[in-house]
Amino acid sequence: MEKRRSFFKKIAGFGAAGAFLTIFKGAYAGNKAKTTFIHHVYFWLKDPENPAVRQKFENGLREMGTIESISLLHIGTPADTDREVIDNTYHYSFLIGFEDRKGHDLYQEHPIHDKFRNEYNDMWTKVLVYDSVDL
Amino acid sequence: MEKRRSFFKKIAGFGAAGAFLTIFKGAYAGNKAKTTFIHHVYFWLKDPENPAVRQKFENGLREMGTIESISLLHIGTPADTDREVIDNTYHYSFLIGFEDRKGHDLYQEHPIHDKFRNEYNDMWTKVLVYDSVDL
Repeated sequence: MEKRRSFFKKIAGFGAAGAFLTIFKGAYAGNKAKTTFIHHVYFWLKDPENPAVRQKFENGLREMGTIESISLLHIGTPADTDREVIDNTYHYSFLIGFEDRKGHDLYQEHPIHDKFRNEYNDMWTKVLVYDSVDL
Repeated sequence: MEKRRSFFKKIAGFGAAGAFLTIFKGAYAGNKAKTTFIHHVYFWLKDPENPAVRQKFENGLREMGTIESISLLHIGTPADTDREVIDNTYHYSFLIGFEDRKGHDLYQEHPIHDKFRNEYNDMWTKVLVYDSVDL
């Protein structure tokens, strides 16, 4: 539990530095990252107006963002753009990239991801995923 | 016309080198890019099986990707993942990032973007946009 608390303190520290939210990490293999696989997840929460819910959910997304095969990370909320073609009804955007499909598969099977699925899946009403590979 | 041809040859060269498709460019202001604004566009084409249509459309997306305020670029097609929560019915994913909202607005008003809208908008049946800003 102490370990967990210090983990979130570390995360919060990064957030405060403004450096955590968009990270282009070195690839897990130790090479310079070349992101070829994009995994973009949109979440619609059950209780989006509740600050405690939002804080918990953001912590969960940030913890997922630490999975080592992630080469690109952006955790966001809808921008204030509003045109006919824009869907701004979601509550959280979780955009991650991987060097390759193998990196994606490591993420899908990672214990932190399993934990997120188990502990957070009752917080959303809808989740929508778009996976894409580069041309 | 000659100028255009040499532009696409340049693009094709980048593509062959495998370096064009995911680019983390220096920000337009000359600083190291910190991408805070994500603009993710999904396209459904009218004639997705037609190789000439696809080639033309890909060229158009690549040309859009040269707009100078873009700090992150990934042009893709659906991955071969397939789960209940995944939408893999789209034909092209155009993911771009900007240092800030100003970068996004420059892109929206850019002549290359106007040209794309005018010359390509009869090629798709549906376009869907998600804009997000970091936490």
